[in-house]
Amino acid sequence: MRIADRLFAAIDLLSDPPVAHAHCDLPCGVYDPAQARIEAESIKNIIDKFNASDDETFRVRSTIIKEERAELVKHHLWVLWTDYFKPEHLETYPQLHDLFWRATKTAGEVKKGNDAAVADRLLAEIAEIAEIFWATKK
Amino acid sequence: MRIADRLFAAIDLLSDPPVAHAHCDLPCGVYDPAQARIEAESIKNIIDKFNASDDETFRVRSTIIKEERAELVKHHLWVLWTDYFKPEHLETYPQLHDLFWRATKTAGEVKKGNDAAVADRLLAEIAEIAEIFWATKK
Amino acid sequence: MRIADRLFAAIDLLSDPPVAHAHCDLPCGVYDPAQARIEAESIKNIIDKFNASDDETFRVRSTIIKEERAELVKHHLWVLWTDYFKPEHLETYPQLHDLFWRATKTAGEVKKGNDAAVADRLLAEIAEIAEIFWATKK
Amino acid sequence: MRIADRLFAAIDLLSDPPVAHAHCDLPCGVYDPAQARIEAESIKNIIDKFNASDDETFRVRSTIIKEERAELVKHHLWVLWTDYFKPEHLETYPQLHDLFWRATKTAGEVKKGNDAAVADRLLAEIAEIAEIFWATKK
Amino acid sequence: MRIADRLFAAIDLLSDPPVAHAHCDLPCGVYDPAQARIEAESIKNIIDKFNASDDETFRVRSTIIKEERAELVKHHLWVLWTDYFKPEHLETYPQLHDLFWRATKTAGEVKKGNDAAVADRLLAEIAEIAEIFWATKK
Amino acid sequence: MRIADRLFAAIDLLSDPPVAHAHCDLPCGVYDPAQARIEAESIKNIIDKFNASDDETFRVRSTIIKEERAELVKHHLWVLWTDYFKPEHLETYPQLHDLFWRATKTAGEVKKGNDAAVADRLLAEIAEIAEIFWATKK
Repeated sequence: MRIADRLFAAIDLLSDPPVAHAHCDLPCGVYDPAQARIEAESIKNIIDKFNASDDETFRVRSTIIKEERAELVKHHLWVLWTDYFKPEHLETYPQLHDLFWRATKTAGEVKKGNDAAVADRLLAEIAEIAEIFWATKK
Repeated sequence: MRIADRLFAAIDLLSDPPVAHAHCDLPCGVYDPAQARIEAESIKNIIDKFNASDDETFRVRSTIIKEERAELVKHHLWVLWTDYFKPEHLETYPQLHDLFWRATKTAGEVKKGNDAAVADRLLAEIAEIAEIFWATKK
Repeated sequence: MRIADRLFAAIDLLSDPPVAHAHCDLPCGVYDPAQARIEAESIKNIIDKFNASDDETFRVRSTIIKEERAELVKHHLWVLWTDYFKPEHLETYPQLHDLFWRATKTAGEVKKGNDAAVADRLLAEIAEIAEIFWATKK
Repeated sequence: MRIADRLFAAIDLLSDPPVAHAHCDLPCGVYDPAQARIEAESIKNIIDKFNASDDETFRVRSTIIKEERAELVKHHLWVLWTDYFKPEHLETYPQLHDLFWRATKTAGEVKKGNDAAVADRLLAEIAEIAEIFWATKK
Repeated sequence: MRIADRLFAAIDLLSDPPVAHAHCDLPCGVYDPAQARIEAESIKNIIDKFNASDDETFRVRSTIIKEERAELVKHHLWVLWTDYFKPEHLETYPQLHDLFWRATKTAGEVKKGNDAAVADRLLAEIAEIAEIFWATKK
Repeated sequence: MRIADRLFAAIDLLSDPPVAHAHCDLPCGVYDPAQARIEAESIKNIIDKFNASDDETFRVRSTIIKEERAELVKHHLWVLWTDYFKPEHLETYPQLHDLFWRATKTAGEVKKGNDAAVADRLLAEIAEIAEIFWATKK
């Protein structure tokens, strides 16, 4: 991912003001699945750190912060589902409803334990959503 | 930016689980200046839409939402400044304090009016921060 | 909607120990579509009051508060959709995904103007959800 | 509480058009003690589940979520007390101040432990408030 | 007030770690009516600035921010009322319930317009609460 | 500190409406380092109480609430740094950037453990900021 980020940063600097993509319900038109992905990456790391620690305060804080981050994942995904996607997208991608339902359920599941495999599944479901999202932007 | 995003999405799909970069104060270690940039792109669009509209409700909503988005920009930048950057970064980049001070002040300024040039300045300052951020990650 | 509400109340009345209904993602098991309905009733009233007023401060406040209430409607509905409903419910009510998608989109639409008919549609969609919800509780 | 709830539901059922009940400080005129009751039912369930579990993550999450739910109970009750009730209600129900004070103190107490009896007391105090509330609506 | 603040800052520097006074519901034991007063001073200034401006964006922002600040006043006062004051205080100060009820109602009233006299009344009611508060601390 | 508080309360009562000092980003012009100090005093007390307790629920709640309070300290300090201080202040107090950076980093550190010395350091750094703040007000 580092390579992509560098390319991305480089193009940010070279290019004209970037065409934006919609995320608030004005709507402003700046949506980006990266918002959900960043929170999910955080969750993945928190789980790894929780499992490697036996400090009481650290474990409580991990549990609290993972709870908040998972809620943010749900929120960002719900916003994409309701606000960005339109009926014409659903025709091309009939799996959309089910995919968002599963991904937001996984974000709930990730709150309940510290199994890295669940965080990986969440990241994979967000990547699947991102792929569809960017395909609709082409 | 679209090209970078596609590359980025492509590599997301191809690569192993992405190395994450730190953003909560656990700390989880997943920081990403994209969070501030996405909000600032939203602000840019809101200003353009505000200036093109004479609908009372739309203009009030634009003002509310821009206020919130600008607050988020400030928050994401403050988190990077305090939580991510360390004394050794400051030695290499002595302009860090001033750069974050100016960028967060611009995020305050953008609340107060609808001048697209101020939003562009905010985006440029965030890009400058992103460039330093990614340089420290190399 | 009134009919649904009365039915809803009737079932409350007839059934023994009001089985609790689940709403946080512990999960605590206390869900209740009344949470979304109360916010939507508020929206309906705000729209009526907005249309009857020409006071600048009142109209700005109405717009702000309606925005917040509509966001709460979306949130309460998303929680029901993701957290309460299970695959077996979807088999019996295959319209669930589409119904929630439409209702949350209506909650977004209601932010954008002051047309009482949109608020009525939102209330009707929530009543439809409530009816299914209570049927699954029997 | 159950009796109060049934009475409450009965009045809903018998009366004509469910006069809306006021809850934001526009004011929109949609108040409803059900908001506090739903959160308190959640607290009751959380306490029961906490006492039945010895999973560390579950117990931490229960404690966090109960804290938030109790804060919501306090908030919903404070709003009713300050925003809905008027001096003329206080003349008829001189116990109002003391009742709200006790109920919000109980909502604070419920944060501090996992005694189901405290949650039951909270539910009973909310039911007492609801009974007065609905009497003022007749 | 400046004189007091300087004395206060001076003593902060000279004295041992300050004895604290309770404000969260742990409870931590650090209550301070200054929290409500600071927000109410902000409201007073916002009203003066609103009345002196005819800039559309400024007036909308003033209305939004005043709404939030008034909500914070209510919150800080409710916390003092429920969490800090005990039955023994009520015996000495039987006006407590009514005083908090009036002050929080004034905080609601201040949202609805831009009359500086209402903000002054709010500040006076908070000063009355502060006087009782500090008397209980002697 | 009690003496200062009493003087302060006394002058509040005697004096004309207090000249306010700026804290929201309207800006309203009411800033006051007391906001950060009150939260830091709370943190100090929470740490002492945590160390004196072996109740599981109490310790989890302490950790949660300390986390929130520390976040509020950071927020109040960031607001002072970005919104209140101007380039002319920086000329007189060139240590400002570094002082705020250290203080907000300490607010992060205080989340991570229960060492009273860290809370004392945070209080000292806030006192140092308050001294400069009040000097700029003379």
